[in-house]
Amino acid sequence: MKALVTGFEPFGGEALNPSLVAIRRLPARLGDIALTAAVLPVVYDEVLPRLRAAIASAAPDIVLCTGLAGGRPALSLERVAINIDDARIPDNAGNQPIDRPVAADGPPAYFATLPLKAAVAALRNAGLPAIVSNSAGTFLCNHAFYGLMHEAVRAEPGRVFRGGFLHVPYLPEQAARVPDAPSMALDQIVAGIQIILAVAAAHTDDLLVGEGALA
Amino acid sequence: MKALVTGFEPFGGEALNPSLVAIRRLPARLGDIALTAAVLPVVYDEVLPRLRAAIASAAPDIVLCTGLAGGRPALSLERVAINIDDARIPDNAGNQPIDRPVAADGPPAYFATLPLKAAVAALRNAGLPAIVSNSAGTFLCNHAFYGLMHEAVRAEPGRVFRGGFLHVPYLPEQAARVPDAPSMALDQIVAGIQIILAVAAAHTDDLLVGEGALA
Amino acid sequence: MKALVTGFEPFGGEALNPSLVAIRRLPARLGDIALTAAVLPVVYDEVLPRLRAAIASAAPDIVLCTGLAGGRPALSLERVAINIDDARIPDNAGNQPIDRPVAADGPPAYFATLPLKAAVAALRNAGLPAIVSNSAGTFLCNHAFYGLMHEAVRAEPGRVFRGGFLHVPYLPEQAARVPDAPSMALDQIVAGIQIILAVAAAHTDDLLVGEGALA
Amino acid sequence: MKALVTGFEPFGGEALNPSLVAIRRLPARLGDIALTAAVLPVVYDEVLPRLRAAIASAAPDIVLCTGLAGGRPALSLERVAINIDDARIPDNAGNQPIDRPVAADGPPAYFATLPLKAAVAALRNAGLPAIVSNSAGTFLCNHAFYGLMHEAVRAEPGRVFRGGFLHVPYLPEQAARVPDAPSMALDQIVAGIQIILAVAAAHTDDLLVGEGALA
Repeated sequence: MKALVTGFEPFGGEALNPSLVAIRRLPARLGDIALTAAVLPVVYDEVLPRLRAAIASAAPDIVLCTGLAGGRPALSLERVAINIDDARIPDNAGNQPIDRPVAADGPPAYFATLPLKAAVAALRNAGLPAIVSNSAGTFLCNHAFYGLMHEAVRAEPGRVFRGGFLHVPYLPEQAARVPDAPSMALDQIVAGIQIILAVAAAHTDDLLVGEGALA
Repeated sequence: MKALVTGFEPFGGEALNPSLVAIRRLPARLGDIALTAAVLPVVYDEVLPRLRAAIASAAPDIVLCTGLAGGRPALSLERVAINIDDARIPDNAGNQPIDRPVAADGPPAYFATLPLKAAVAALRNAGLPAIVSNSAGTFLCNHAFYGLMHEAVRAEPGRVFRGGFLHVPYLPEQAARVPDAPSMALDQIVAGIQIILAVAAAHTDDLLVGEGALA
Repeated sequence: MKALVTGFEPFGGEALNPSLVAIRRLPARLGDIALTAAVLPVVYDEVLPRLRAAIASAAPDIVLCTGLAGGRPALSLERVAINIDDARIPDNAGNQPIDRPVAADGPPAYFATLPLKAAVAALRNAGLPAIVSNSAGTFLCNHAFYGLMHEAVRAEPGRVFRGGFLHVPYLPEQAARVPDAPSMALDQIVAGIQIILAVAAAHTDDLLVGEGALA
Repeated sequence: MKALVTGFEPFGGEALNPSLVAIRRLPARLGDIALTAAVLPVVYDEVLPRLRAAIASAAPDIVLCTGLAGGRPALSLERVAINIDDARIPDNAGNQPIDRPVAADGPPAYFATLPLKAAVAALRNAGLPAIVSNSAGTFLCNHAFYGLMHEAVRAEPGRVFRGGFLHVPYLPEQAARVPDAPSMALDQIVAGIQIILAVAAAHTDDLLVGEGALA
């Protein structure tokens, strides 16, 4: 079993990105899962080529992309990626697409194919705040998540993989400079990623438990 | 130009639903738009047949479904409906589907076809807090919104319509019983619906302005 | 029975202050209460002289000062004024005192002497979101509230009055320009002020009901 | 230099209280500060006798009481304790006082005498989210904080101490069971307490920097 985990470079004036700091702390093996970590740029034109190259190189069974959701208090496993870019701020190359599809030939959305609810249950059992989220936003995180799942459906036989996206909170040192912002310690983000990978490696079917949102 | 506006019955123990109270206050005409209002039940098995019947009867050019998003402070125009039911609470008939598609034969999502950003700009110009939202949740509101857009793509020539979904805040009298909940006055919700309809009637193309979310 | 109601001038770059807009909409009489409205400047050195002058002129039985609490969703009746100025932003004259007492000779705090809990109950019965708040902040609102109560304890016999402070939310047209900010319609703020005054005029004793905060 | 640090027993149905878990992890010495930890009961009639006994026994120069503020994302150094009990829930003995003074003979409030702003600056420099808070609520935390400062002003010569109160967030394992609740890792709470104590031991004067709240 091979897993690829990605994190993003810093953006929006931040000096660090917890998703990047976290994936650099992952071990090379997790039980019988071989882990590969890859860094993704916060640049619309570069992120999917880089992601595809990492997938081609790692030939993973599972891909978990991770990114920052500043202001959220919990690990957020994203349910769905939507086929739209609507950038509230410029990316790190200065591009700011508005209402442009991620993939002109793609469907309106993709659902994650990792067992989100089993992962959320395992995270909570380990004492980590976690939710299923119904929106990955419309910036680079959603773009990468959509691109990941678009790649997954086109994978050749023998290269099939399952995929998902995890949004992580600010690190405490980031939240220390933002009024009223929740945060999560790095150790817990790193532990959370490993729990998700272990659950994803062990289960292809998900739990049938409610984690929905009224609105 | 004909418009159909729907609101939901109360649910979750609430005595009223602001979306229902609001649509009952709409006039029969708005400029040269003829308005029809229809009530939707908060019951999975009944809501789409009722919606289809209302569409068949009204033969609208525009459909705006509305529902309650308790806890949100602004009028929220929903960008996307996703093909999933994941009910956090039972519907009014006691059903609580989990991770079931809205339409087994449908695509993973539909985007609204009303000019959301032009509507948000007009709402703000009128002094009404408004946003583009990237998740309508996974309960009856998303279900109805998805069903609406699924119907739209299958409409016969001559019966084509554009559609969207508006989430409204609690009324003040509801928020008075919920600690720390934001609300919006009924007059403003009613005014907001009329502004959205007027914008939708006047524009098929949307503004190209950013209203995206980082996460 | 005579009541004085004050509101503040705009500050912090806002074009209006809902407390000021609201008090200008008050009638001259409310049942058998004669109302006087006075405008307070958002200037540390001027606000208490102006307030004392208004009190001297109106000779009120009740004084309700009002101000803006941008970001709060409910009418907030303040329980306590504290003897400290700690300005997060400059006042309208450019002054920004830090950790300076409001009154060098005053006690550390004053409690409101209006029946807060009876007022909150009446507001909710009228469908208006309302709370008892345990902090009026450390800017001009707390300064005026403290100065008001400091004046009350030194009033000459025959000029005794009871006093309190109401924080009001943003108006909708303000919240339309602030992401995720709750608001309250002007009609409701105006109605709320009248309800508080009527309750304060009718009751000197308060209800003994819990409205406390854990933290 | 001797410091007393207190934490509270669990309450409100929680299995643990992070303030208690944290103080049990403190070392016996911190540089040249000798630390004593004491547990306070969440019972109105017992907490101040227990606190006074701990003070009499430890003869501290500094007392830092700590308690849980579930829902807050940062370490909150409380500026002021007010002379009121208004319990939203019963204490652990079933008592629920409403609008009763903490001390019938006491002033309306006490300000903390630890250098709050220097402590907040040091916490942030260490990467820990921290604020000065203007309300400790009206439950046991405020009661203990008020009682602490009431005791401080009556201390005999030679037994004089400075005091303050720290509210800490939920632990992650608590937040994992509360929707949308922020949390802080135990290591960080423990580190934060030590930073506050070190700053308080080193400084009697505070920094003159703004940490105020508009409302």
